[in-house]
Amino acid sequence: MIKVSVMYPNSEGCKFDMSYYVDKHMPMVRDKLGAACTNAAVDQGLAGGEAGAPATYIAMGHLYFDSVEAFQESFGPHANEIMADIPNYTDTQPIIQISEVKL
Amino acid sequence: MIKVSVMYPNSEGCKFDMSYYVDKHMPMVRDKLGAACTNAAVDQGLAGGEAGAPATYIAMGHLYFDSVEAFQESFGPHANEIMADIPNYTDTQPIIQISEVKL
Repeated sequence: MIKVSVMYPNSEGCKFDMSYYVDKHMPMVRDKLGAACTNAAVDQGLAGGEAGAPATYIAMGHLYFDSVEAFQESFGPHANEIMADIPNYTDTQPIIQISEVKL
Repeated sequence: MIKVSVMYPNSEGCKFDMSYYVDKHMPMVRDKLGAACTNAAVDQGLAGGEAGAPATYIAMGHLYFDSVEAFQESFGPHANEIMADIPNYTDTQPIIQISEVKL
């Protein structure tokens, strides 16, 4: 199983509309990806590791697929439309990582 | 529910012993945290978002708790012992983030 993590860096004054992300963006993404996307998760950053430190990421979204190929084949045709929705909920530039789920 | 993510930055030549992490470190951590830790996950970085780009994190570990207090109360007494195990599997310095699970 692989996991595509979209991580939105936190900075002072940055914007992130969590309601839009959870209620509009993620459902739209899952609808476009179809059955290839087996699960999804969303995290809202609360704090960093040191006392009083801010979270490194204001939010993170995770999409699960059986394989990298399953991600690419389902995401590719909708990539432009999905990316075009990002300014509707944030002014940050996300970092994307593909990981293999080991546990 | 909250999630404590321990993210190990990737860099050329950095070391990360995934077998030790999954088979030794995480079981030890879960044993120390007890029932307060409701779930755990481990990701191995495969790639970044751009074609040919490396993963930002060589590995990520995630621990789930009912609340920040449940994390702090269970982790605090074992923090030193858990942190002391890090050099046994990596030479990287992890970034820690506490998030609220929204989806």
